[in-house]
Amino acid sequence: MSEYTAPLRDLQFVVEELAGLDAVNKLPGYEEATPDLVQAVFEEAAKFAGGVLSPLNRAGDTNGARWKDTEVTTTPGWKNAYGQFVEGGWNALACPGEIGGQNLPRLVSAMVEEMWNGANMAFALCPMLTRGAIEAIELRGSEHLKETYLPKMVSGEWTGTMNLTEPQAGSDLAAVRTRAVPQGDGSYKIDGQKIFITYGEHDLTDNIIHLVLARTPTAPEGVKGISLFVVPKFMVNADGSLGERNDVRCVSIEHKMGIHGSPTAVLAFGQAGGAVGYLVGEENRGLEYMFIMMNAARYSVGIEGIGISERAYQRALAYARDRVQGAEAGVKGGGKAAIIRHPDVRRMLMLMKAQTEAMRALAAVVAAAMDTAQLAPDAAEKAKAQAFVDLMIPIVKGWSTENSIDIASLGVQIHGGMGFIEETGAAQHLRDARITAIYEGTTGIQAADLVGRKMARDNGHAAKTVIASMRETAESLKGEEFAALRETLSAGIDAFDRSVQYVVANYGPDVRSVLASSVPLLKLFGIVAGGWQLARSASIAAGHIAAGKGSDFYKTKLITARFYADHVLSQAPGLAHAVVNGAGGTLEISDQAF
Amino acid sequence: MSEYTAPLRDLQFVVEELAGLDAVNKLPGYEEATPDLVQAVFEEAAKFAGGVLSPLNRAGDTNGARWKDTEVTTTPGWKNAYGQFVEGGWNALACPGEIGGQNLPRLVSAMVEEMWNGANMAFALCPMLTRGAIEAIELRGSEHLKETYLPKMVSGEWTGTMNLTEPQAGSDLAAVRTRAVPQGDGSYKIDGQKIFITYGEHDLTDNIIHLVLARTPTAPEGVKGISLFVVPKFMVNADGSLGERNDVRCVSIEHKMGIHGSPTAVLAFGQAGGAVGYLVGEENRGLEYMFIMMNAARYSVGIEGIGISERAYQRALAYARDRVQGAEAGVKGGGKAAIIRHPDVRRMLMLMKAQTEAMRALAAVVAAAMDTAQLAPDAAEKAKAQAFVDLMIPIVKGWSTENSIDIASLGVQIHGGMGFIEETGAAQHLRDARITAIYEGTTGIQAADLVGRKMARDNGHAAKTVIASMRETAESLKGEEFAALRETLSAGIDAFDRSVQYVVANYGPDVRSVLASSVPLLKLFGIVAGGWQLARSASIAAGHIAAGKGSDFYKTKLITARFYADHVLSQAPGLAHAVVNGAGGTLEISDQAF
Repeated sequence: MSEYTAPLRDLQFVVEELAGLDAVNKLPGYEEATPDLVQAVFEEAAKFAGGVLSPLNRAGDTNGARWKDTEVTTTPGWKNAYGQFVEGGWNALACPGEIGGQNLPRLVSAMVEEMWNGANMAFALCPMLTRGAIEAIELRGSEHLKETYLPKMVSGEWTGTMNLTEPQAGSDLAAVRTRAVPQGDGSYKIDGQKIFITYGEHDLTDNIIHLVLARTPTAPEGVKGISLFVVPKFMVNADGSLGERNDVRCVSIEHKMGIHGSPTAVLAFGQAGGAVGYLVGEENRGLEYMFIMMNAARYSVGIEGIGISERAYQRALAYARDRVQGAEAGVKGGGKAAIIRHPDVRRMLMLMKAQTEAMRALAAVVAAAMDTAQLAPDAAEKAKAQAFVDLMIPIVKGWSTENSIDIASLGVQIHGGMGFIEETGAAQHLRDARITAIYEGTTGIQAADLVGRKMARDNGHAAKTVIASMRETAESLKGEEFAALRETLSAGIDAFDRSVQYVVANYGPDVRSVLASSVPLLKLFGIVAGGWQLARSASIAAGHIAAGKGSDFYKTKLITARFYADHVLSQAPGLAHAVVNGAGGTLEISDQAF
Repeated sequence: MSEYTAPLRDLQFVVEELAGLDAVNKLPGYEEATPDLVQAVFEEAAKFAGGVLSPLNRAGDTNGARWKDTEVTTTPGWKNAYGQFVEGGWNALACPGEIGGQNLPRLVSAMVEEMWNGANMAFALCPMLTRGAIEAIELRGSEHLKETYLPKMVSGEWTGTMNLTEPQAGSDLAAVRTRAVPQGDGSYKIDGQKIFITYGEHDLTDNIIHLVLARTPTAPEGVKGISLFVVPKFMVNADGSLGERNDVRCVSIEHKMGIHGSPTAVLAFGQAGGAVGYLVGEENRGLEYMFIMMNAARYSVGIEGIGISERAYQRALAYARDRVQGAEAGVKGGGKAAIIRHPDVRRMLMLMKAQTEAMRALAAVVAAAMDTAQLAPDAAEKAKAQAFVDLMIPIVKGWSTENSIDIASLGVQIHGGMGFIEETGAAQHLRDARITAIYEGTTGIQAADLVGRKMARDNGHAAKTVIASMRETAESLKGEEFAALRETLSAGIDAFDRSVQYVVANYGPDVRSVLASSVPLLKLFGIVAGGWQLARSASIAAGHIAAGKGSDFYKTKLITARFYADHVLSQAPGLAHAVVNGAGGTLEISDQAF
């Protein structure tokens, strides 16, 4: 079975040429993130991803995490790999220097995250959740919480979790029932059950720091009465050593379709008197704090989709080069051929490749905007970048993850019958990918966020700004070689523009119709935004070729953009039709008539 | 967990009103297949599907078939269920009366097959394979073979298998290497290994009759040197009793992504001196015989896709009615609502429902054409029906199965996080569905068959005949209420028409480009053909409504057709773009540049 190889050439391209590492490098604080340093980081990460994490991926699937008597044992080899991960400083890549991190731009750490997920998504989830917990404590925690927990969480000696979901409270966090009763000493007693807690229990580290949503006795109903607490697995003594076991236990872990290596815990808080918890920030503002982190977490899940797509592509490509079956159509007297020579197999490979590159390009551009939004000296530039980031998060999350399912499924298809046999590994990618469109907000939740908070609320201003940029790109594509791409991209932009106008005009008077169209709109936006970035890529590539520096990499970018236009961007007008006309059938039918 | 409920109302509608049971009932031999009889059969089948097969579906997944020492044990309960299946005469539903069957039209037996697959696809595979083996022996076997094997295969006392694939011979059957050496007594000694043999070994019956592709010593190379043999697991004595164990052993079974209840065997023939086999028909014509059966088998796999889609829909619908989460958007002062009230969940349910009904409608119309092709007294009518069947088989197979994957995936999505947890059952449907687009010819193989044998060979004649019928339907949609449907359907037909012209014009000079476009074309054809059938359904429904007999069922048909037009048919022009323009990117890229 082939191991993961980080797509270093394309990562370099998107970071340096498409997303503007040079500009990010000039932001105050990121002066050290030079192209040379970034390449060095990428190369080391690629070694770790391919050499350490990838070989453990299949064992994670077949062995899985095991639960016994409230304790969870991870797959053999994972504890050692996690130790190396911490040792290598990888856990702190994106954390600010002042809390012990490597202080690398999000543009860089995001691309490294793609490598972890491509190599071993179930493993990568653990540091991803820790990052979220770090961010919560860093942004809103007291100095005491920061001093007590951050250093070891940043280093990775301890991991973090996010405890949101309860059986009755999934997408609807207003329904959270876990109780938090103040003890008069600044601490709270936490009592309740949380489900779907990723790495909620494991044997990788000595301690686990749970961030938990709960209600205080005086809290108002609904979303305005939810507070955020730190609940460590082991209490931490004043000298930093571990104290007593806290009253939080793993009651069971789930039997899931995929990511078997990642334990999904049911956690019981307070079955023996109450788990000790510490308030983060102020009471009743827990959901607000969660939303601060939500964008980052959703973006990270989008990166999971890209990583798994790349891995599925690599595996299918290796199989297609290796598997000999049938003769080549249209070639007289040829013998048996590797299936990569069969046109439909090429189409599937191109569909995997082109979409993965489009997703990566868009994610990189959004990551660079995150860096600008955080550090740009100019307030207007910051605000513009933040508006772009906010608009694009549901696309990076929703579009990349939905695509990853289709891409992993294509990977299975390329394997033929062997794709259905688990030992090939192709099926695992599909099973793993399937969760990405669900957790951290389903695609429907992303789409509702897109049409509501991100489009209707500003009357489509941010979307129109993006449309203007897209049109600039389309108009910059000159000459015969770009005629087809320009035409298809322009038609896609027009389709998206019509759809945005529909959303803005109808969200107020007819929100249900707009919501009924919201996922087709999200998909349409993703397709066009991906085409925009591939068109930019093609334009850059054409520049190199014109300057006589046209390597195969750049020539292929032209082909990839063209393929994407014909096979993916061409779907845009049809989706706009569904957006603008599609609500009727959805809403007219009575509940009984289904 | 909800059990399967056969969609009896829709089955009655498609059989009686859409596919023309009255005309099939008039065919010589099918005089007994009156609407009353058919309804009685459907109702009994529904009871068996929902009451016996469905409750075993989950156990089949979790327990699976087990291999030990060349023997396979099926899931507890399966042997008993199979016994009831045989007892009830279900195995022989479609077989001619003269060999002991129930002699029901394919139109009827196909819809019953949908029920078996909706209830328990892994179980349904066993009789499906037996039917294929029966057909081979019936069509080309000697009288002695027929007398020896058919009665017990038709009753279901013995099952049958199809042994095509070998490790180096998957889609490419020309590469088959299994040897068959004549013994001078009319028998052959078979020697070789076959893989992916569905129900190649099991404990449901006393004997298993393998149909095996192999090469005789004097056979020419390639596809023209393959012969077909009957190889029983146990030899059959002259009195019909079982004799010695034949030299065919199950070496292992596969660990698959889904259909765990169906043992997928690796069979070794001749490890202890040679398995005794009997030639079917003539030497070197094995592949030709297989192709006779292939249409039937491919059609049946299409039915699997429809059955699993219906099951996934039912499960998602039950969950959506039951799961309360969040408040209804756009409804002031409303409390928490079942998720079926959320517009995007409705959209997903409608997408599942509308596509499943479109697939079922098309499959029923094709089944009726099979009956006409077999029994119509008029030769021209027979030939026309056969041409239609031949054209549509790759669509029923390829389109229904590709859709079933997306539909089952939507079912997972509607469950949110619970969809990823195996105990819900939604994930199983996706894992099960995934194989349908692969076996009996991948979607790429179906699409190659479509553009080559079914379109280019007759210069698009059969396709143009269908296009003319589609246009008639579109033009018959009169009035304002049908304006949107008519417009979208017409645009879809135009898109398909352009694509057929492209295929016919380019298959000769540029077969590789046409093959590169073949799967988008297959999908386009399916979408438009499904829209055609839903438009016919809507038209029939409108007639009932105008006549004052408009039940909710008929009113819903209008909504479903409209939804399908806006969300599915609207994709047709984009797909035609990919068909006509999409070959370039696929074929230009060098193998190394992937």
